[in-house]
Order: sequence, then structure tokens, then C-alpha cells
Amino acid sequence: MSEKMLSAASLGARILQMAGQLSRHSDQPDALTVSYLSPAHRAVAQDLAGWMREAGMRVEIDALGNVVGRYAGAHPDAPVLMTGSHFDTVRDGGRYDGRLGILLPIAVVAGLNASGERLPCELEIVAFADEEGLRFRSSFLSSSALVGAFDAALLDRADADGIALRDAMRAAGLPGTEASIRALARDRRQLAGYVEVHIEQGPVLLDRGLPVGIVTSIAGSVRMAAAVTGLASHAGTTPMTMRRDAAAAAAEMILAVERRCSQAPTLVGTVGMLAVPNGSANVVPGRCDFSLDIRAGDDATRDAAVADVVRECEAIASRRGVALSLTPLMRVPCARCAPRLVDELEACVERAGVQAFRLPSGAGHDAMMMARLTEVCMLFVRCGNGGISHNPLETMTADDAGVAAGVFVDFVRQVGRQVGRR
Amino acid sequence: MSEKMLSAASLGARILQMAGQLSRHSDQPDALTVSYLSPAHRAVAQDLAGWMREAGMRVEIDALGNVVGRYAGAHPDAPVLMTGSHFDTVRDGGRYDGRLGILLPIAVVAGLNASGERLPCELEIVAFADEEGLRFRSSFLSSSALVGAFDAALLDRADADGIALRDAMRAAGLPGTEASIRALARDRRQLAGYVEVHIEQGPVLLDRGLPVGIVTSIAGSVRMAAAVTGLASHAGTTPMTMRRDAAAAAAEMILAVERRCSQAPTLVGTVGMLAVPNGSANVVPGRCDFSLDIRAGDDATRDAAVADVVRECEAIASRRGVALSLTPLMRVPCARCAPRLVDELEACVERAGVQAFRLPSGAGHDAMMMARLTEVCMLFVRCGNGGISHNPLETMTADDAGVAAGVFVDFVRQVGRQVGRR
Repeated sequence: MSEKMLSAASLGARILQMAGQLSRHSDQPDALTVSYLSPAHRAVAQDLAGWMREAGMRVEIDALGNVVGRYAGAHPDAPVLMTGSHFDTVRDGGRYDGRLGILLPIAVVAGLNASGERLPCELEIVAFADEEGLRFRSSFLSSSALVGAFDAALLDRADADGIALRDAMRAAGLPGTEASIRALARDRRQLAGYVEVHIEQGPVLLDRGLPVGIVTSIAGSVRMAAAVTGLASHAGTTPMTMRRDAAAAAAEMILAVERRCSQAPTLVGTVGMLAVPNGSANVVPGRCDFSLDIRAGDDATRDAAVADVVRECEAIASRRGVALSLTPLMRVPCARCAPRLVDELEACVERAGVQAFRLPSGAGHDAMMMARLTEVCMLFVRCGNGGISHNPLETMTADDAGVAAGVFVDFVRQVGRQVGRR
Repeated sequence: MSEKMLSAASLGARILQMAGQLSRHSDQPDALTVSYLSPAHRAVAQDLAGWMREAGMRVEIDALGNVVGRYAGAHPDAPVLMTGSHFDTVRDGGRYDGRLGILLPIAVVAGLNASGERLPCELEIVAFADEEGLRFRSSFLSSSALVGAFDAALLDRADADGIALRDAMRAAGLPGTEASIRALARDRRQLAGYVEVHIEQGPVLLDRGLPVGIVTSIAGSVRMAAAVTGLASHAGTTPMTMRRDAAAAAAEMILAVERRCSQAPTLVGTVGMLAVPNGSANVVPGRCDFSLDIRAGDDATRDAAVADVVRECEAIASRRGVALSLTPLMRVPCARCAPRLVDELEACVERAGVQAFRLPSGAGHDAMMMARLTEVCMLFVRCGNGGISHNPLETMTADDAGVAAGVFVDFVRQVGRQVGRR
């Protein structure tokens, strides 16, 4: 029984089955949307807590609604190896984003427990209640509290219905006080590290034909809002040489972003929002707004690209006689995965008979926040359907989930052994 | 008295004074908006009819609400020289767009009448009630009826409040029947031509330091709606080489439009509407929509540019792996001004001591429609404030209006003489 439960095929099937069951809880009837502390969100938390208990874990729902399961180690005083991910979703999201990193460890612990296997360290699974921040624009709320970086001003922030975070917490049976959340901050001395399993949310592993990949760093975004102001004028009566066309200027800037951000392997630059406000077919645009998001595997690469892009956009604006306003919105530093854990994970991947492949994470994850507190690493699992995520088409195979679970079992045994020896 | 009333200074002042008085009638308290058959629109018509009567004209408000004034000629059977323009406005428009072409002839006729001067032909001023088509999306409604091209389906078209054109007409005391409007179609044999004075609505005359210009042709638009479909994907996790970015493709197309349409003097190409629908800063755009408007002084120049732009956009789409859909929305042929009338107008401009300058009209005007029925020409008057129009900042000087009125007096005398001789 235990042997069977720790087989890749069995683990993979169980993970996908649990993800399917969780996907039945949603704020919206025809889409998977689970926002922080909604009834669907609380139902997901209850399912998770139940499965953790069945897997032999001590379970607690903390002051933020995080579901925390602990699988006691062989040595009660050994440091804790933490794993986890988030169970909230974006609007109309996918069923594996975040949840894989909770369900996979639960399936593994269930297998270990069934076979009576204890790890030398305690394994803690944290199901983070809020990472996407859909309801309160509160990205990384859960992990920020664990690392002692909770922003108390959030308690007064209202959702779209005018309900303050504090009141939503109380309605969900949580204390809703700053003190209760501050108390969630962990002591770094008790932690042996943090490992997060996550669906890749991109096409790289799919393109390379690999079920899993080892994350080297988690890119932080530099994000800006750009507004180009030219002069609105009549499309028929303004000669091309006399135009100050905000959209044509923006078009040149978009291509400059694309060109510059194609010059380093881990670098990406995106103009995701673009609009001529109140545009009309027969009016030369007097205004064009766009967003800019630049990321890379390391901050130096990213910041050099940002500086070049800003300089080039300013030169374009100047040459075209339009004004450019660039408003910084976000600058998050990259989080590097710990070389020791990355190497360990790589060895596990190779032992699983899979070619080891390292890649940066372009998306943010709870591990990025956890890196402030302890050493982190991440295992990516191949994303089907061309790598689409944050979308109902997000998918993965049971085989890939099984391979990842096999790597994870190996990893927690190895790291547990090292921790146990300390 | 009469001498004084036909002086450029006096005519210019009178024209601007009347335009100021008309601008007090508006559908909106803080903007000049006069939509077809609104109370403000009918008040403008009453003012125009009153001034026409004072100028010694027979006045009629026809079945479309056009205000038609006739200044009898010396020979009752001589053909009619028609002039005019529209008195409806765009939303938040300018006070000279259209109205100049009504008020200038009224001021001129008032001067002729005061001095007892009769022209050899009859001069008819048509104040077109609907050219902009703001209320019923019915551009050129008035002039289309005069040329026998009225689209009867418009009678059932509803405005934003659900009121059908037919019912709006009846509420304004008009018959609101197809037959009454069809009856407005003119007999081309009775017409000696159509001359329209209009504010340039562009910066060309301002840039050249000229008060007036002679229009050679009225550009017709080719207009299309473009939709680029790529693949929405995560901005952080999709490498630059694996993107199918609809906005980056659109940006390249916009620059292709700009480049190609800069290759001929009268050619203009505009992307006035541009949007990534539901764009998000961290999502590579899967869709980008834009409008395309291409015009030139002649159809061959324009159509060659359209063909090149379409070919180039399709090549860009194909190279980037995105789909491009181009929906034709409009294809209006250019209207050429009659060489005979253009030459006559040029001679009048030179006699006024102004350098003769010919230019195409990039904007559509009633003259474009009237060209289906009779020979047309147009006189443009310099637009201040950088050439801005369709905007409250639209402006012109009394001096320029006076110069144009002087040219107009000369022109109607010359053409009247030729017509009278027939």
C-alpha cells in the first residue's frame, strides 16, 4: 500500500484528482475564481485542512486564514523544512496555479505517513490564503506576514463592495487585528529552508520537452505607467510632416522595448496595456497610454534594460515633439534561490532520470517573499497548452505531477537528512 | 454705406459677430454642440433665416430643415450659382466649422443688397442642417438629399434616446416623409456650380502665412478596422522569442502606415483608435484593435498606399505569427474641383493681392457630395491656433474672413457674368 502510494503514477493521479475537487469551489458559476475569504475560499481551506489531517498532519488555520499542516519529524527539535504555495486564484484562473504546491506535498506526506516513514526534520506545508491579492489588491499578503513584513495599512483597505479587509476577516471568524497577524512572523532560526513546487505558467519546459525544471531566481518586476501627450488634430487636414501623433510615438517606444528586451536570455519586457483614450478614426491621437513591465533573472540585467528603454523612449518623444511621462509603479528586487538547495534539487531531478534544466522564474511567487526569511528553492512543473496560465486552459499531466512528486520525496529526504545531522 | 459694407474690414467683422451670436445656441451649457433638430439647432436656423431676409433674400426652410436663401439675379431665367455649408456641429466643436460658409455669403449679399447691386445670376445660399451627422450618424444628410442620393432607411434610424429620425422631423414641424425629402433633389440643368467657403481645419495655410487657399480636390477616405490576434501569455514567463504579441505587431503596423503615407505630398494615413482590450500590465497582449484611415488628393495615390499598407501589415502579421483581420468600413472617392472654377478662384485671390496657393482638402465637406450634381470649388480660410478644429479652440481672424469675403464677392461677380452671358 505505502509503496504504491509513493509511486509517481499514484501521486500524480491523486494530485490531479484533488485539484479537480478544489476547482468545484468558485466565486463565479462558470469560471474558477477564488478570492480571499469568500465562501468558496473558505471551502477550499476546509478541504485542504481535511486532506492534511488524513495525511497525518497537525493542522491549524492561522489568523490570516492560511492552512498550516505539520508532519512531525523523527527529531522533535530539528529545524522545520517549509513548503507550500497559495490557494487563492486570479479571476477566471487555472486549477494548478498555486494549488499544485500545496496538493503535491499533501499527497507525498500521505504516502510517507501510510508507510510509517518519518523525516529527520519536521515538514510544514503552508497553504497561503492570499497571494494573487485579487479582492484587496494585497499581493503576497500571506507570505509577507510570515516574513514579518505585513503592511498594517491593508487592514483598512476596502474591496469592490466597500468591505474593509479587517471586517472581512472578522466575518470569516478571524481576529482581524494587527497583533494577531504580526504574531505569524516566523523565527528564521527554526527554519531549514523553503521549497515551492509551482506550475511553470510559461512555455519553456513544454518547448524543451521536460516535465520539470529547477528555478535559479525569481525575477522582480520594474513596472511603469507611460503617458504620451502629442497634439490631437484632424486626420484629413494635418500633413504627415506636421503631426505630433501620440500613438505613432508609442508604437515606436513599444518596438524599442521589444528590441532591447530581446538582448539577454532571461530578460523580458512587456507593454500589456495600451490605449488611445477616446480615440476616433479621423483624429490624430493626442494621447496614448501604456504600461511597461521589465523583468530579468538578475537585477543588474533588468536595471540596465530599464535605463536603456527609458533613455530610448525619451529620445523618441523628443524627436517627435511629444511629451512622455513615466510613472514608476513597482520595483521588486530579484530573489535568488539558494545554490545549496538548487544543487540538491538538481541532483534529485537527475536521479529521477530527467535531464536537469535550470531556468529563472519570470513570475512572482511566495518563495520570492520567503527568501527574505530563509533559503528558498523552487521546482517548476511543465505547463500544457502552450504554457498558458491565469486562464481556464491552464493544464498539466498526471505524469508530470508524478515526476515532480518523486523529485520532491527525494528532496525532502535528502534535505531532512542534512538538517537532522546538524 | 454700401461701399463700407462691402469693405473687407466690415465684412470680416460682421462675419465674426454673427458667428459669435450663433455660438450662444448649444445643446450643452459649457460647449458648442448643435445636433440636428435640437432646440439649439432650430434657434440657429431662425437666426440664419432672419439674417438672410435682412439681406434681401427670399427664404425657405425646407423639408430637411435646411435654410435656403435666394438672392434674385438681374436675369430671372439665368442659372443659379449655389453656395453654402452646414450649421450643425460636432460635439464640443468650433464656431466657424461650416458656419463660415453660410455667414460669409450672407454678409456679402447684405452688402450687395445695400448698394442695390444685382448679380447676373441668382445666388442661392444653402445652410445645410446636417453634415456632421452627430445625432443620427447621418453624415451629409442634407447635401445627399439635394443631389438625389437620400438614403430612406435613415428615417427609421434612432438617436441615443431612441427617437427615430422620422419622429424627430415631425416634432420639429417637418413632414418626415420620404417623398418630401426626395422632392429636394435639384435639377442639375438649373445650376451654374457650387462654391463653398470653409475654415481649413488644418495647419497648412497658417504654416505658409496665407489667409486663404484654393482647394483642388476633396479627399475621400478609405477606412478600415484592424484586429490583431496573437496569444495572451504571462509577461514574466514567456520568453521574448516565444511571444505572439498582438500589441507589438500592431505597433509595427502603425509605423508602416506612417512611413508609407509620408511618401506623397497629399497623402495622409492615421491610426486614430488603438486599444488592447482588457489589457493587463503583466499579460502579453493577445489582442490589439486599431482603426486605419487613409486619404490623398487623388484616388490613385490613395489606393496605391492602401494596397501597400495592407500588404505590409499582412507580412508583419505573418512574420510574427499573429492573425490580422482588416474590415473595410468606408471607401469614398475623391471629388475633384472643376478646373474652370479653380482657375477663376485663383484669379480672384491674386486680384486680392494674396499669393495664390492650391491645396487638397483632407476633410470631407458638403462640396464633395454636391460634386455629384454640379461643378464645385472651395475656398479655404486660415485656421488659427495651430490649425485645430472640431474643438472649442478653433479660431480665425476677422482680417482673414474679410479677405475671403472680398475674394468671394469678386468670384460671384465673375461667375455671374459668365453665367449671365450664356
